Amino acid sequence: MATLGENRYGKSRVRVMKVVRHESHHAMKEWNVRLLLHGDFETCFTAGDNSKILPTDTMKNTVYYLARESNASTLEEFAIEIVAFLLANNPQASKASAEIEEKSWHLMTIEGQLHPTTYQLGGPELQTAQAVQERGCPLTITSGIDGLTILKTTKSAFTGYIKNAQTTLPESTDRIFGTCATVAWEYIETPSDYAATRAKALETFLKVFAEHDSLSVQHTLYDIGTAILAAVPESARVKLTMPNLHCNLADLSRFGQTNPNQIFIPIDEPHGYIEAVIER
Amino acid sequence: MATLGENRYGKSRVRVMKVVRHESHHAMKEWNVRLLLHGDFETCFTAGDNSKILPTDTMKNTVYYLARESNASTLEEFAIEIVAFLLANNPQASKASAEIEEKSWHLMTIEGQLHPTTYQLGGPELQTAQAVQERGCPLTITSGIDGLTILKTTKSAFTGYIKNAQTTLPESTDRIFGTCATVAWEYIETPSDYAATRAKALETFLKVFAEHDSLSVQHTLYDIGTAILAAVPESARVKLTMPNLHCNLADLSRFGQTNPNQIFIPIDEPHGYIEAVIER
Amino acid sequence: MATLGENRYGKSRVRVMKVVRHESHHAMKEWNVRLLLHGDFETCFTAGDNSKILPTDTMKNTVYYLARESNASTLEEFAIEIVAFLLANNPQASKASAEIEEKSWHLMTIEGQLHPTTYQLGGPELQTAQAVQERGCPLTITSGIDGLTILKTTKSAFTGYIKNAQTTLPESTDRIFGTCATVAWEYIETPSDYAATRAKALETFLKVFAEHDSLSVQHTLYDIGTAILAAVPESARVKLTMPNLHCNLADLSRFGQTNPNQIFIPIDEPHGYIEAVIER
Amino acid sequence: MATLGENRYGKSRVRVMKVVRHESHHAMKEWNVRLLLHGDFETCFTAGDNSKILPTDTMKNTVYYLARESNASTLEEFAIEIVAFLLANNPQASKASAEIEEKSWHLMTIEGQLHPTTYQLGGPELQTAQAVQERGCPLTITSGIDGLTILKTTKSAFTGYIKNAQTTLPESTDRIFGTCATVAWEYIETPSDYAATRAKALETFLKVFAEHDSLSVQHTLYDIGTAILAAVPESARVKLTMPNLHCNLADLSRFGQTNPNQIFIPIDEPHGYIEAVIER
Repeated sequence: MATLGENRYGKSRVRVMKVVRHESHHAMKEWNVRLLLHGDFETCFTAGDNSKILPTDTMKNTVYYLARESNASTLEEFAIEIVAFLLANNPQASKASAEIEEKSWHLMTIEGQLHPTTYQLGGPELQTAQAVQERGCPLTITSGIDGLTILKTTKSAFTGYIKNAQTTLPESTDRIFGTCATVAWEYIETPSDYAATRAKALETFLKVFAEHDSLSVQHTLYDIGTAILAAVPESARVKLTMPNLHCNLADLSRFGQTNPNQIFIPIDEPHGYIEAVIER
Repeated sequence: MATLGENRYGKSRVRVMKVVRHESHHAMKEWNVRLLLHGDFETCFTAGDNSKILPTDTMKNTVYYLARESNASTLEEFAIEIVAFLLANNPQASKASAEIEEKSWHLMTIEGQLHPTTYQLGGPELQTAQAVQERGCPLTITSGIDGLTILKTTKSAFTGYIKNAQTTLPESTDRIFGTCATVAWEYIETPSDYAATRAKALETFLKVFAEHDSLSVQHTLYDIGTAILAAVPESARVKLTMPNLHCNLADLSRFGQTNPNQIFIPIDEPHGYIEAVIER
Repeated sequence: MATLGENRYGKSRVRVMKVVRHESHHAMKEWNVRLLLHGDFETCFTAGDNSKILPTDTMKNTVYYLARESNASTLEEFAIEIVAFLLANNPQASKASAEIEEKSWHLMTIEGQLHPTTYQLGGPELQTAQAVQERGCPLTITSGIDGLTILKTTKSAFTGYIKNAQTTLPESTDRIFGTCATVAWEYIETPSDYAATRAKALETFLKVFAEHDSLSVQHTLYDIGTAILAAVPESARVKLTMPNLHCNLADLSRFGQTNPNQIFIPIDEPHGYIEAVIER
Repeated sequence: MATLGENRYGKSRVRVMKVVRHESHHAMKEWNVRLLLHGDFETCFTAGDNSKILPTDTMKNTVYYLARESNASTLEEFAIEIVAFLLANNPQASKASAEIEEKSWHLMTIEGQLHPTTYQLGGPELQTAQAVQERGCPLTITSGIDGLTILKTTKSAFTGYIKNAQTTLPESTDRIFGTCATVAWEYIETPSDYAATRAKALETFLKVFAEHDSLSVQHTLYDIGTAILAAVPESARVKLTMPNLHCNLADLSRFGQTNPNQIFIPIDEPHGYIEAVIER
């Protein structure tokens, strides 16, 4: 006999842009929201009974509706509002979550000044936030950044590793270290300011990455995670994934040339993948 | 104080193509492999000590090496070989996993006959397999399909759901039901033939999808999962995700036209998302 | 002084799905339309005068409106209808074009029978058509296929090419030949049946590709183009682009293994690119 | 009888990274190169004679080789070197072109200072250059930017356009104007500094976009093109494409809410497309 196990449903890729028209400038945010509900949906699966189903179309409308009602200025605050609204209005739901991605729009600089109403899209990274709540339990908030794309041209080595019959990688004391990093820190206490905390976490990440004498991706990842925990005392743990953006030293000897760490061939695949949680 | 929590590392997107040159035809497979190790890597993170690190570059070479040694004709068998090799040769690893995606290449039909050495890429779906083993524990094998893109133009309804102040969706007794489905079944027993079992699971999926009088995505998903469990007695559970490929009925009344379920506007975002595990 | 040179505008990615509900089965097509107008739009650019501008939003609506009115069963016929409508209703336009891509949906096979109302998405290739007309001139129709992804595991050689100081490629008398081809044939006469002609062109392409003793991509491309011209007497010329899907022979000697044309490493970049027009 | 018409071939997506290790900092560029040759290749197509074919693999190697030899500090200079090398060494070629895209890497700012050896990837835009030369004719150089993603929240109107039976778009005197622009300017004279000229063209683009009282996309596009022609006296013409990033005003009246230009729904498709050349 088959039975229904773990299940959830919701709406993905609900895009909404909010423009707050201040006197001096416009504050614009572009958010991409994913909402999910867990709950008592068994008869929908087993008998086609939709009486406890909030349509995903209505979830989408809820995002637009709440965006208008909301005073949230950060993605974290908006995610919290969505989860609270879903739980308050849907007794059939036992758990709700909202994940938000924010695009890297920033006010454009014209002749050295920020233009008050014109934006330019920056890097590929997305600011992320997730709010999750099981009914009757505390809310969990996680903030992060996806796709932070960074590279250092020195202070990165990789030596002393295991060699075996499949080893062809030469040791290197000075290689390119590029990554498209994802980081997320989970709050145990509410920070006084989500945006300021986010800025501090990013600044810490970049500073450690730039200055670290890296002996491996793991080595740098750990020091970044440790530094973020120190910089964000309200966080319990930091999860980091740092896939390599490999830049292989080109073999120019075939053309009678030397290559003193100058010419590299960037590749997207295959790529190394390192993932770890750093906790208090 | 910071400490290292859960962590793993490996190589992603290792692509390999194997051509077995039979007398009558060539059997070609294109695989995309991801390998991951868990283990005693703490000093790498905390002290830059790489002495227990098998480089991800070596993992990549291992895939090529094993592809040549292997007699595996299915992605499941190759995933199992990779995991066994990694655990046997890396005492520092406590757990190894291999995930493989296989592209939908099939022999081309020329004048009604399969051409023995020429291939055409079929649908967007990928055949998937995952082998995971913790040292000293049994191996877990999961097979599946990602991105199976299917659509029915009738026998799909959605009525009787919750209405509230954010509801705008009209009920429908005859709508388009499209999805880009992902399915994975976990084995509790080794089947006699992974490829035949996979074919049976897919056939079952498509038949239920086509013939079902759907009252919701959940309703159809459940019946598909139940049927796969019945068709694959060696499986313990089936996980299905069925995001909607929404095709919205076009509002043609603005142009003085009727629209008797004929003209639709397909959209990629936002989209509904339904996910469930069906278990014995 | 600046002046306005060549210009055009329109709407891209207008997606529309049409379901024709026959008694015995449903005929479903998913089209992605791009419409462009040339004409007397100078004052819009130079003075912000929109009085001759048909909004691109209205062009989008026109696609939906015409989809409902139309009896077109092929993308070519629908493209022709769009161009005729745009020119007839927009005296300010001197030229109109419509490009349509059709997704590879096909009726699903269940237990050896085509299911009448359920579809599965096939290969990545898109069926394409373009209709272009300058006012007062004849209409030009081009049909084609984009992204036809095919591969042969034998009957492909590449030898006798130029060698110089940058050459590292070894000659090969038996290599993998994969391509993601684009083909387009321009009509000089209206064929009796666009769909049948398309089927014949595709069949011809695949047969020549499969059976050709290829001495280079160029060599096979030329024979495919020549064969399509012969198979489609209503066509004036065939344009083919055949970028390589390179599958490099893996160097396994580093692991003490031979590699008798068995293990390959597929790469997406860099890739060779060959493009030619074959004319009568 | 079939004959060979226009044709060309080459290598696409040749990625190369060059690191120039100055005392005070590292200058890093990541380039993606496409090389194409035209010439006397007929017997390759018609008879499989490769004796005049420079393999695309060798073209790839040529990029790596030249990257090492080169002193080019801009993508324009490197494109020129590639074209000169190809024509000088390949008498069978009648024409050569090189197109280069440069990723938006910039030195990272740490505590208000540029870090000398660490980079962050900026916006999605790519810096582009193309060098083309027919043997015996002057070289043509075009510089540009692809994918410049910008948005203004005010000073954009669209009124006074044609209305017809398919019109549903309301006029707007204050709408969002977003675009993912592509711009290319063709040189008639060699500028004293390609990088400085590029910076001036971009600065001009952004300033006009930000400050323009836009009456349509065309209107703004024209003023941008005119301003770039003025700012870059060495240029003959500017080609601009400005597809819309539509942000539709959300209809909140269904939820009993007003929407005073605050809540928008960004969509990727369908999208308007405007393209024009502005010439002296």
